[in-house]
Amino acid sequence: MSELRKEPVLQRWVVVMKDHQPRPLERCPFCPGSESETPPEVFAIRPDSTRRDTPGWTVRVVPNKYPFLRIEEEPAKRAYGLYDRMNGVGAHEIVIETPEHVQHFATMEISQLAGVLNAYRARMLDLRRDTRFKHIVIVKNHGPNVTALPHPHSHIVALPIVPRRIDEELKGTFNYSQFHDRCIYCDIIGQESSRKERMIAETDLFASFVPFASRYPYETWILPKKHSCDFGQISDAEIADLAKVMRQVFSCIRVALNDPHYSLALHSSPLQEQYRPQYHWHFEVRPRVEVVHGFEWATGLFIHSIPPEEAAAQLKAACEKVGD
Amino acid sequence: MSELRKEPVLQRWVVVMKDHQPRPLERCPFCPGSESETPPEVFAIRPDSTRRDTPGWTVRVVPNKYPFLRIEEEPAKRAYGLYDRMNGVGAHEIVIETPEHVQHFATMEISQLAGVLNAYRARMLDLRRDTRFKHIVIVKNHGPNVTALPHPHSHIVALPIVPRRIDEELKGTFNYSQFHDRCIYCDIIGQESSRKERMIAETDLFASFVPFASRYPYETWILPKKHSCDFGQISDAEIADLAKVMRQVFSCIRVALNDPHYSLALHSSPLQEQYRPQYHWHFEVRPRVEVVHGFEWATGLFIHSIPPEEAAAQLKAACEKVGD
Repeated sequence: MSELRKEPVLQRWVVVMKDHQPRPLERCPFCPGSESETPPEVFAIRPDSTRRDTPGWTVRVVPNKYPFLRIEEEPAKRAYGLYDRMNGVGAHEIVIETPEHVQHFATMEISQLAGVLNAYRARMLDLRRDTRFKHIVIVKNHGPNVTALPHPHSHIVALPIVPRRIDEELKGTFNYSQFHDRCIYCDIIGQESSRKERMIAETDLFASFVPFASRYPYETWILPKKHSCDFGQISDAEIADLAKVMRQVFSCIRVALNDPHYSLALHSSPLQEQYRPQYHWHFEVRPRVEVVHGFEWATGLFIHSIPPEEAAAQLKAACEKVGD
Repeated sequence: MSELRKEPVLQRWVVVMKDHQPRPLERCPFCPGSESETPPEVFAIRPDSTRRDTPGWTVRVVPNKYPFLRIEEEPAKRAYGLYDRMNGVGAHEIVIETPEHVQHFATMEISQLAGVLNAYRARMLDLRRDTRFKHIVIVKNHGPNVTALPHPHSHIVALPIVPRRIDEELKGTFNYSQFHDRCIYCDIIGQESSRKERMIAETDLFASFVPFASRYPYETWILPKKHSCDFGQISDAEIADLAKVMRQVFSCIRVALNDPHYSLALHSSPLQEQYRPQYHWHFEVRPRVEVVHGFEWATGLFIHSIPPEEAAAQLKAACEKVGD
């Protein structure tokens, strides 16, 4: 069971899990043959000749056995003195990205990576039919320091609130569009595409670069060039192109930084009454090469010593080494 | 040299350091006898019989040899396409908290801890005379994972901007005071003091507790009970009491969590035209026991599995074990 609590000063929600004790695993629950170790699949890419929850799949999505939010609950918002709390209602699913226990976005077949993106889209479209959910987050962690299970997987989390970071991006996007009547992300893509100094990979449909004011060294964004607020609306052709760009970006990161731990996050518009056409969906990648000291925590002011242009140059040089 | 860059969407500043390569150290530059290894001291508690920059001090403050902001610059704000940048103007000083190379707030003499707090106050009052500085931050990191130098020290950083986190707290404080005509921190202290379920240490002048919606497990705050926005205005009597409370809190943390790495931050009102009497200064302590996964980074929504009441109970039990 978990609970959402609101920080009264900053007005931001925090998830407090109770009785969270996943048991140690004897074998990988995500490998083919272990299908019964997970809850029944909610999506899979598999030949028609294979049965649900048996081997043969190439991508498989299952509810998380140890979710930090549960679909069975009602939010039940309530006061506690001057504080606010609500039940941890939500959904928490796992995308098992490949049957292979050891694999990487940098080395995966492009068609396999496209399958993962397909699974993201399919689950986003399905989960949003539950109108209790205000936002869907997709996050992937790679590397032993950031995930307990080595088998490649991503998390899809449907939330009863719009999380702080997305809300801040919506506000920034809205303010800019009020002032300029343009999308700030479209303008950023324009500037990065013309100056190239921070660009890592670019096609007709997508651009990937180190942002001008990256918070973390080697932070990398991947955005569609055509304005769209909603990853759920991505076309098959765009998925095919995005898979290529992602493989190239992850190859750069893997080679330049010696297979670092990293986190990947999809930022897409919230849902229902909070759907915002002004927003521009994108992926953010954070290679875990830095140590976050106390200053960032204390102030929210991030400091690092790799200028984004230098980071982009290193990543690009690695790209050129591995080729396309 | 460093530069401040503004994230265009989130409108938050990031510090990008250039050519940051501190040399490896052969001996501790903060131990007595190494005074010439640091820039000349700007404050010290030492007997009148001793000379500046020689041994004999009990607390010593020096400019950081490798500052990430420099006092000699003008901000020189400028555009870069649609982006904003400015020079890294600021001050970065180090408080050497004790002549002892190995020491801890949990075991330090209370008078020594009061000396450190005195140094904080003295430097805050001096630095604010430079009207380029909009905010002063004090941060301490303890433990090999969060600081390179083991000798106990804190950072005092004067900034040309109000950092994001403080700005958010000011907004929350202001909104609450508009609605209730009261200070939200005063109300929080009232609720925590009456219910006690998250209280760690309490005197007539100070309260220390795990906040209701802590972002991190065992996060602990220390606040003055009397409303004050400005640590610079703390009295000698308050410093003496605060030193006692801090030693107790750090004892609890040290015993309960087996001497964890931690960060400590002073949150006090910004300066000059951004001085805000509605604010309530306080210390925040973040024991470094958690692993921050990708989800918090992706969403700004924090998740942890130690309910604050349970954290407070563990810390309090440790307090009782060590006594006063």
